[in-house]
Amino acid sequence: MKTVVVTDVERADASSIERLAAHGVATVHEAMGRTGLLGASLRPIQSGVRIAGSAVTVLCWPGDNLMIHAAVEQCREGDVLVVTTASPSLDGSFGELFATALQHRGVRGLVTTGGVRDVADLRAMGFPVWSAAVNAQGTVKATAGSVNVPITVGSAVVSAGDVIIADDDGALCVPRRYVQAVLGAADARVRKEAESRAAYLAGELSLDRNQLRGILNELGVRYVSAAEYEADNGSS
Amino acid sequence: MKTVVVTDVERADASSIERLAAHGVATVHEAMGRTGLLGASLRPIQSGVRIAGSAVTVLCWPGDNLMIHAAVEQCREGDVLVVTTASPSLDGSFGELFATALQHRGVRGLVTTGGVRDVADLRAMGFPVWSAAVNAQGTVKATAGSVNVPITVGSAVVSAGDVIIADDDGALCVPRRYVQAVLGAADARVRKEAESRAAYLAGELSLDRNQLRGILNELGVRYVSAAEYEADNGSS
Amino acid sequence: MKTVVVTDVERADASSIERLAAHGVATVHEAMGRTGLLGASLRPIQSGVRIAGSAVTVLCWPGDNLMIHAAVEQCREGDVLVVTTASPSLDGSFGELFATALQHRGVRGLVTTGGVRDVADLRAMGFPVWSAAVNAQGTVKATAGSVNVPITVGSAVVSAGDVIIADDDGALCVPRRYVQAVLGAADARVRKEAESRAAYLAGELSLDRNQLRGILNELGVRYVSAAEYEADNGSS
Amino acid sequence: MKTVVVTDVERADASSIERLAAHGVATVHEAMGRTGLLGASLRPIQSGVRIAGSAVTVLCWPGDNLMIHAAVEQCREGDVLVVTTASPSLDGSFGELFATALQHRGVRGLVTTGGVRDVADLRAMGFPVWSAAVNAQGTVKATAGSVNVPITVGSAVVSAGDVIIADDDGALCVPRRYVQAVLGAADARVRKEAESRAAYLAGELSLDRNQLRGILNELGVRYVSAAEYEADNGSS
Amino acid sequence: MKTVVVTDVERADASSIERLAAHGVATVHEAMGRTGLLGASLRPIQSGVRIAGSAVTVLCWPGDNLMIHAAVEQCREGDVLVVTTASPSLDGSFGELFATALQHRGVRGLVTTGGVRDVADLRAMGFPVWSAAVNAQGTVKATAGSVNVPITVGSAVVSAGDVIIADDDGALCVPRRYVQAVLGAADARVRKEAESRAAYLAGELSLDRNQLRGILNELGVRYVSAAEYEADNGSS
Amino acid sequence: MKTVVVTDVERADASSIERLAAHGVATVHEAMGRTGLLGASLRPIQSGVRIAGSAVTVLCWPGDNLMIHAAVEQCREGDVLVVTTASPSLDGSFGELFATALQHRGVRGLVTTGGVRDVADLRAMGFPVWSAAVNAQGTVKATAGSVNVPITVGSAVVSAGDVIIADDDGALCVPRRYVQAVLGAADARVRKEAESRAAYLAGELSLDRNQLRGILNELGVRYVSAAEYEADNGSS
Repeated sequence: MKTVVVTDVERADASSIERLAAHGVATVHEAMGRTGLLGASLRPIQSGVRIAGSAVTVLCWPGDNLMIHAAVEQCREGDVLVVTTASPSLDGSFGELFATALQHRGVRGLVTTGGVRDVADLRAMGFPVWSAAVNAQGTVKATAGSVNVPITVGSAVVSAGDVIIADDDGALCVPRRYVQAVLGAADARVRKEAESRAAYLAGELSLDRNQLRGILNELGVRYVSAAEYEADNGSS
Repeated sequence: MKTVVVTDVERADASSIERLAAHGVATVHEAMGRTGLLGASLRPIQSGVRIAGSAVTVLCWPGDNLMIHAAVEQCREGDVLVVTTASPSLDGSFGELFATALQHRGVRGLVTTGGVRDVADLRAMGFPVWSAAVNAQGTVKATAGSVNVPITVGSAVVSAGDVIIADDDGALCVPRRYVQAVLGAADARVRKEAESRAAYLAGELSLDRNQLRGILNELGVRYVSAAEYEADNGSS
Repeated sequence: MKTVVVTDVERADASSIERLAAHGVATVHEAMGRTGLLGASLRPIQSGVRIAGSAVTVLCWPGDNLMIHAAVEQCREGDVLVVTTASPSLDGSFGELFATALQHRGVRGLVTTGGVRDVADLRAMGFPVWSAAVNAQGTVKATAGSVNVPITVGSAVVSAGDVIIADDDGALCVPRRYVQAVLGAADARVRKEAESRAAYLAGELSLDRNQLRGILNELGVRYVSAAEYEADNGSS
Repeated sequence: MKTVVVTDVERADASSIERLAAHGVATVHEAMGRTGLLGASLRPIQSGVRIAGSAVTVLCWPGDNLMIHAAVEQCREGDVLVVTTASPSLDGSFGELFATALQHRGVRGLVTTGGVRDVADLRAMGFPVWSAAVNAQGTVKATAGSVNVPITVGSAVVSAGDVIIADDDGALCVPRRYVQAVLGAADARVRKEAESRAAYLAGELSLDRNQLRGILNELGVRYVSAAEYEADNGSS
Repeated sequence: MKTVVVTDVERADASSIERLAAHGVATVHEAMGRTGLLGASLRPIQSGVRIAGSAVTVLCWPGDNLMIHAAVEQCREGDVLVVTTASPSLDGSFGELFATALQHRGVRGLVTTGGVRDVADLRAMGFPVWSAAVNAQGTVKATAGSVNVPITVGSAVVSAGDVIIADDDGALCVPRRYVQAVLGAADARVRKEAESRAAYLAGELSLDRNQLRGILNELGVRYVSAAEYEADNGSS
Repeated sequence: MKTVVVTDVERADASSIERLAAHGVATVHEAMGRTGLLGASLRPIQSGVRIAGSAVTVLCWPGDNLMIHAAVEQCREGDVLVVTTASPSLDGSFGELFATALQHRGVRGLVTTGGVRDVADLRAMGFPVWSAAVNAQGTVKATAGSVNVPITVGSAVVSAGDVIIADDDGALCVPRRYVQAVLGAADARVRKEAESRAAYLAGELSLDRNQLRGILNELGVRYVSAAEYEADNGSS
């Protein structure tokens, strides 16, 4: 409950991060037992970009970006900055100057529950952002917070050094200790999906491929013709 | 109130659907007496695409896409899948594998009050979607629902076989029995708008063209100069 | 509290407007002491466009666009139409025909707390819009409102003749009497940001450049290693 | 798609309505296969009141209550007024004068997707209301709508003469043709719940009473002690 | 655009304030031409209370209540504190200690776009509050704002010394210079409503009393029996 | 990432829980460095009730309450049930039968990010609830989740055995290992607030008591008379 900047955080190894990135957010989320998403309200300001990296976490006061300044120093090549506020705030606490400094340090992008501004510049310079808002509202540098403590984003907890993946589907956190297990499950899922894709292109139905007809039957779902249905329910 | 899959649904004729598509959502909505919209919260994941087709409706349980699997089998060339949930849910119940199967069957697109994922793939493969969210959150296949029963989307009721039109302005449902009447009204509206467009480009004002000056006068709207207004109200 | 159309509104001079536009929304907002934003819910329907112009304000009844018709006549070359409703409404009160008429008069764009439709046409014809929604829902022409009276948009008050700037970051109102002061402050801010940008590209930290280490220290923010932090708090 | 006032609507019989009212919203909703709710956003302005009656439906234009005036004449002893708008609006289109007129006619209450005002008076006179907002915002009487046509409220369709039940849990629509079937199912459910209540007060667990242990086991839910869990996952 | 505390603000006379309070929010809003409301999102934490008084306005930074401390000193007997934030924030910036200090000075209540806490205490001590949230989230005292400058609340502008009325229907601002005109209009409206109430209790319809049948007819609203309607549209 | 029911969870000692309850949510939140709140969207269905107890946590699938059934068995005298869903859902997964079973076991109340129903019964039987919605929407028992694993509620993480406090201001989680430290800080805060209360009742200003005049001065806040302010800014 103290305000701290935690230094010397351990990261996941770079090759695992790259392998996770290859799978994308939806696949890795499934491989994690459908956990880890950072919330459907975080949307990319660009299209067609996927990043992965190690989380540097920032907890700011609403309307204040002091701790983002402190966080820049803790960032290394391959990191992703993850920002939230102590209470909900969509203020534009991040813009092009921060992105310039972070890009200089090799940071791969930003994920924030707040707002960003200078988005035309951010797109032009190729600094990827996932945020809850685009908002020009400026912030102050007056109140303490923390860097690299565990924060909650959506219903996930993000700890410093966890792996963040973000693409057009949203953003995801893979806890560092689960990286190897998740990679295995994701690889398996990709293989299974490739087989399904080929089957569907050959005309097979997922009802058959996944043995769902039995489930429908057990649940009491009946098949009736439109004519029968209208006879029972009237036309709409 | 039973869970059913209704088969052999009658569709509108293909040529009427094409003629409706030519007019677009806003025009047809006006031609329907300003009804039929599926809600401003349903947004396209792509830009510049218009589709029209016959509705195959799906009612899922929240967090569950079992009935989308059942619906695929009911889809034909020229259909549009329309999905909602028994209570509000933005989970990502639809992704690239479903789109692959549907595209294989000639389905023209998806309209859903829920979420979609794999949106980079969906855009790349040209499968159009209108949804309330982009959301990687996965779903289960455990609870019954219905296919091709009437569902509510926004404030509209969509019945199987109704015509769905969707473009950059949103999505719209034309009840099958009104298709011919709507087509006539839409054609008339397009002609009238073309005349107005020409008039405005020639400098005519809509105040004059639509005889609105009399209405303003009847309603008691006064014209005052800025100087008079400030004298009465103080400067702001 | 009467419904009026105010005519002969004074505008800011064109050269000041151009100079403001050069700086963009975020910079001018900061130069105004972090005021003037028209709210994060107003989003552009296009990308990469910046406009600036003199406000023609419109106060409509919800579900009604009668006063937009009245406002067209009050618009001149270089104006920006700013529309709101007497109570919240996202109906699509503006579309391509209005844009055609306004573009013919040299109007630079639309900012509205309501909805717009025909967005594919608006994008194609290059008429820029910032709105709270894309919504095909049509409106009537039955109830009085006002043109060129002060209106509130977000938490800002927009008076006729104020300067509106809008870009990818949102929309902003500069009260006419503050234009010169704001221009001076914006120029100074741009110079300062250019110096900061160069410094960050040379590896300087904003913590040092802005003398923030002392503030962190005064606020009691402590630096601890990850090992120390885990010893105190347990691993997450 | 025409604006009409439908007269001489058939109602359900009064004794069935009373029997439905005895069960309350949650029970009847379950008896209907978990359908019929008018949405969680409609809240009572009073506490501890339950009503049931026949729906008189009203479709208004946003910001306009003209059709509520027309609807009063269509109301009889035992009716419930159900109001919605053609597009979302929370304006206060209903207040104490309407309630006075309706109470005089024996109307049992109001359900509205809009707002109400004079709520202190409404509570004092004992006229029950379920609404999406309390809002003093006044409305006009300028635009047509309909009375006693089918309307959508939440995800339900309400037709004139359907039975409306409303209590502290919200509001519900029972389609008239299903009233007898629903009554039977509701009676059965109440008997079953009484048995469960007695069992729980005697210490039985719903896990056992509903044979859920087998389901948990099939789904792969494991029981682990806190000590085991922490050994596997670290302390939180 | 400077941060200031404005002192020695002129108030409306006490007897006018009392007369306004006698009418309530909905009536005075109508008397003002349907303006002045502070937004449907501001709800009372108590029931059955009406207050009126002179506005002392406060503009805080989000997450910060420093300026409420400054505002207490500016409050006199008969004032109402009106608080907003520079960007949206629902933090609990106000609680029982502030209420104790304000009650000691004769302040009549609080209207805030933010949150309040200690609501059990506030109710017990009889200090009335209208707020956008109940929220225990605490705030800091670190960033400047202003007292007694014009602020926007909902779509209204509140200037220091304006009259605030608040009751179960919400909160309203009457600009000081309009107080006398509004009082006259409100008195007239109350008389008219009393006559309508008596007429409705005698069975007259508002359709007749307000000459609305002609309007319905002009707008093309047709009366059809349920039997005719079903013949044209099918049963629902 | 497995679905588990964790048994034999350690709780905080009963006397500490009682001492925490004496202070209430706002005070303990401040004593925790302004952390621990479960979000402003969780509101009590009753008024004037405060509870405290040990958390039994439940993670359900949306639209499904199977795991609440499993959780009942894990509850003991003095516990508080804390429920959330894997993705956002306001369905009414909890009602009077669950409350009957829990009250029988000595459970003190429910905190849920979902909805509850049978609220009239819950109030009558004195079972306190804090929820995000009142909603009659029923749920199924088909999909696995977990009991007594750490869950996120608002921006807090709730682990089984943590202390939950809830009152009219909302709900709060005190991590078990911090209970003693928090108690000390809360006691100190209560003493300080009592002194402040006495001072304010004696007419002292918080500006003086908290040495805030210096801060205002440092931040550049100027005091100007209304006359000066109007001379500089024009009347509003």
